[in-house]
Amino acid sequence: MSDRKPVFLVLGAGAGIGGQVAARFALGGYHAVLARRSDEAGLKRLVGQIEDAGGEASGMLVDASVDGTIENLVERVENEIGPIECALYNLGAQIGNRSLANTPHRTFELGWRLGCFGLFRLAHALLPRMVERGRGTMLVTSATAAVRGNEGQHSHAAAMGGRRMLCQTLNAEFARQGIHIAHIVIDGAVDAPDTLGKMLGNSFEDFKAAKGDDGVVDPAALAETYWHLAHQPRSCWSHEIDLRPWTDTPWWNDNPQSAINRN
Amino acid sequence: MSDRKPVFLVLGAGAGIGGQVAARFALGGYHAVLARRSDEAGLKRLVGQIEDAGGEASGMLVDASVDGTIENLVERVENEIGPIECALYNLGAQIGNRSLANTPHRTFELGWRLGCFGLFRLAHALLPRMVERGRGTMLVTSATAAVRGNEGQHSHAAAMGGRRMLCQTLNAEFARQGIHIAHIVIDGAVDAPDTLGKMLGNSFEDFKAAKGDDGVVDPAALAETYWHLAHQPRSCWSHEIDLRPWTDTPWWNDNPQSAINRN
Amino acid sequence: MSDRKPVFLVLGAGAGIGGQVAARFALGGYHAVLARRSDEAGLKRLVGQIEDAGGEASGMLVDASVDGTIENLVERVENEIGPIECALYNLGAQIGNRSLANTPHRTFELGWRLGCFGLFRLAHALLPRMVERGRGTMLVTSATAAVRGNEGQHSHAAAMGGRRMLCQTLNAEFARQGIHIAHIVIDGAVDAPDTLGKMLGNSFEDFKAAKGDDGVVDPAALAETYWHLAHQPRSCWSHEIDLRPWTDTPWWNDNPQSAINRN
Amino acid sequence: MSDRKPVFLVLGAGAGIGGQVAARFALGGYHAVLARRSDEAGLKRLVGQIEDAGGEASGMLVDASVDGTIENLVERVENEIGPIECALYNLGAQIGNRSLANTPHRTFELGWRLGCFGLFRLAHALLPRMVERGRGTMLVTSATAAVRGNEGQHSHAAAMGGRRMLCQTLNAEFARQGIHIAHIVIDGAVDAPDTLGKMLGNSFEDFKAAKGDDGVVDPAALAETYWHLAHQPRSCWSHEIDLRPWTDTPWWNDNPQSAINRN
Repeated sequence: MSDRKPVFLVLGAGAGIGGQVAARFALGGYHAVLARRSDEAGLKRLVGQIEDAGGEASGMLVDASVDGTIENLVERVENEIGPIECALYNLGAQIGNRSLANTPHRTFELGWRLGCFGLFRLAHALLPRMVERGRGTMLVTSATAAVRGNEGQHSHAAAMGGRRMLCQTLNAEFARQGIHIAHIVIDGAVDAPDTLGKMLGNSFEDFKAAKGDDGVVDPAALAETYWHLAHQPRSCWSHEIDLRPWTDTPWWNDNPQSAINRN
Repeated sequence: MSDRKPVFLVLGAGAGIGGQVAARFALGGYHAVLARRSDEAGLKRLVGQIEDAGGEASGMLVDASVDGTIENLVERVENEIGPIECALYNLGAQIGNRSLANTPHRTFELGWRLGCFGLFRLAHALLPRMVERGRGTMLVTSATAAVRGNEGQHSHAAAMGGRRMLCQTLNAEFARQGIHIAHIVIDGAVDAPDTLGKMLGNSFEDFKAAKGDDGVVDPAALAETYWHLAHQPRSCWSHEIDLRPWTDTPWWNDNPQSAINRN
Repeated sequence: MSDRKPVFLVLGAGAGIGGQVAARFALGGYHAVLARRSDEAGLKRLVGQIEDAGGEASGMLVDASVDGTIENLVERVENEIGPIECALYNLGAQIGNRSLANTPHRTFELGWRLGCFGLFRLAHALLPRMVERGRGTMLVTSATAAVRGNEGQHSHAAAMGGRRMLCQTLNAEFARQGIHIAHIVIDGAVDAPDTLGKMLGNSFEDFKAAKGDDGVVDPAALAETYWHLAHQPRSCWSHEIDLRPWTDTPWWNDNPQSAINRN
Repeated sequence: MSDRKPVFLVLGAGAGIGGQVAARFALGGYHAVLARRSDEAGLKRLVGQIEDAGGEASGMLVDASVDGTIENLVERVENEIGPIECALYNLGAQIGNRSLANTPHRTFELGWRLGCFGLFRLAHALLPRMVERGRGTMLVTSATAAVRGNEGQHSHAAAMGGRRMLCQTLNAEFARQGIHIAHIVIDGAVDAPDTLGKMLGNSFEDFKAAKGDDGVVDPAALAETYWHLAHQPRSCWSHEIDLRPWTDTPWWNDNPQSAINRN
């Protein structure tokens, strides 16, 4: 139990963004609570790395798609560790490109449970506590699919589009109560062994090599932006930001060759 | 059973947009199938009005939030009436403004079931049939909440934001297969007795009077735009359009008095 | 001098969108005034085609980049032909893709004069007259470059981005005075001999063939949407609409192969 | 002449954002070059404050609306002080709310010269130098008017809409050459004595008091976000970010009372 350090909670704490942001907050003086669905060994490794670096961290296994789990997590962290100063909702819902025919009803529903409903549940459980304290921050990792729906992304885009609008409704109600909500659009591939790495398997290293120097988002570098957002003074809060590697084409651009079609 | 007329199907056929668009399509030579959750008498009245005007129509009571219902509806219409040339997803999910604390989990989930999942289910059941025929149109009534999340709109905006991104993913997969998908952002109050009228009750007439001449969307006039979209030649299809009364401020504007803050 | 027909004025009346929309309005009972910078023979041909079809039309040569010309045009049309009921600003500013180094200052300025300032000048000259009459419509052809800036489009995108914001400010001031302003985003190649045709030269036919059936916007078909927008009742006005051929990828989508990068 | 410190150049260096960001970069080890149109005394004061704090700074008077001035400024700074590592285009074009009738042609043109063309000229003069060095940053202060056009903002919104699209075209060409371009949407009132302060005159203090604690953007706090953006590693660059005080309603929201109209 920490009675001095503010608490940082991340849902979706893999070895990519979730783990690196947790490490950054631990370095900055927070007690980092890392929650993820599975891989207890991997979770212990992340916690151990933070502790080895002199930080304070805890790990918890939580299946966020199950009713009650997020609610219990918030209660347990607040009771056993301390008031959550900053939470990061980092659960993804990317399942690769699938045609509509190959997107069953329950896949679509699970996408929504992880991509949208879980954030609603976290807000429901956590924000009233932050309101009572008159302050708090909720960071939300998001994706290009939150701002446009690409082919094959039926489940992911519908979930992320809901996530983005939910962030706006939460901000509209809670910003003036002192709660900062930031929606972070990651518009590029991340060097995340537990998500993209697993999707690509053996070809992950080739993929990164083909992207060139700094061609894939380094989650440790990205963590600085999360840290910055969480510490903006309340006279100048950002609600949305986008990020991508320098060599990637932003989502709104296409290549010049197609420009003769339109523009 | 009609073996000559193309079929128009609307989910959410109240006396506002749904009923009026059905009437417009019936007038234009379609057999209009009107589906709604309840009020059999109201449904019969709408069907009767279409028939009195010389059109062809059927009515069906369907609870779109229940698994299997939309799927059965599509199958029944295709088998008993004819191939659906154009479908309109017109189910709303507006429940008025509610704080997060007053938006229970199941309210949020129901909003998603009607606002987003139902459209996915309709697409799942209908689009493969349209692909086989090499053509078809899916119109989707949508709301300002699909493009920005206002305070108190947690459930509605999350559902509608998902709806809009889903329309984009469907369009990305199906447009080049000959299926036209159009997302219609209604950015104003509609003269709809069965939805806004019920929300406002006795004050509905006062509300409309206060808006002035043509200050509320006339659903019969609006139906012309639905008709137009459904009949654009495939060399120039629209994916998104917005509409509002002339006296309403578009969602992206605020009043000039606040302009000193920013701009 | 026509004392019976409402007047439709188009700036940028080539054989593509401008000419076809003029023809559609003439067919619908307007006196169409076609204004363009050069090619008197081509202009006479367009006017002649409209007259041959039983319509009423006039042609005027106007260099819209020169101060006073648009203003004089409006005055002359109103005095000699009749009150302008609907105007279409159809001047483009596309000069193909050019690197920043190959975009001289004066090119950038000319892009703005045609793409943005000309519309401001038209509004300045025309809208007060429409306000006095309590009604009117201003249609504005626009481009994908109005909503995103692609590589090589420095001049065009800066001009079109200004055009779009100007349409919004005009709408904010004039809609409630009875003037309908619609911004039309053409997000695809148009079968326009005088613009895209000249840019592509001999390869224009090959380009169109490669796009397949209905793979290029047919300006005559597109004209129906312009007509529809101009005749929406004021209880349901659209401010923005997008259009493209069925086989074209909308600007916000990219191809599925790149989706592994992000989404 | 500094041969050790990287150079930071700001155009539009008043006592608000421009001056504070300059001070932040000076504190961080840059030689700050402050350029503004007038008020030599005010400029000297800002430079003096930076020097008093132990920083290095220069001041230059430049009328950015005049041809050649920005170009000369870049050349002079590069030759006399050193390579510009980071430039901030901070010139505004806000002139308050004016009806179309009260926005003369030359006002609209001046808005474009300051709001859009000046940025193009800076990019034209500076980016080739940065490309040769393989790196550099261009920060661009922008306004809500860049993303929506409010009533009375004809000149400002048209200029800022062009500014935003220009930032996107520049980013599309230069990001992969190592130049980071960031467009910063300030969506709230700034505590800026030289701009908003002058507009409001004697009522400025009352205005700020009415906004409450931290109700106006503190430019010194805001400067941290500019600093952060300029130092993001190239694997995770942001192109756009928004900021506003916690108590301000974001531009896309309106107040709940109007929600019955739509949503």
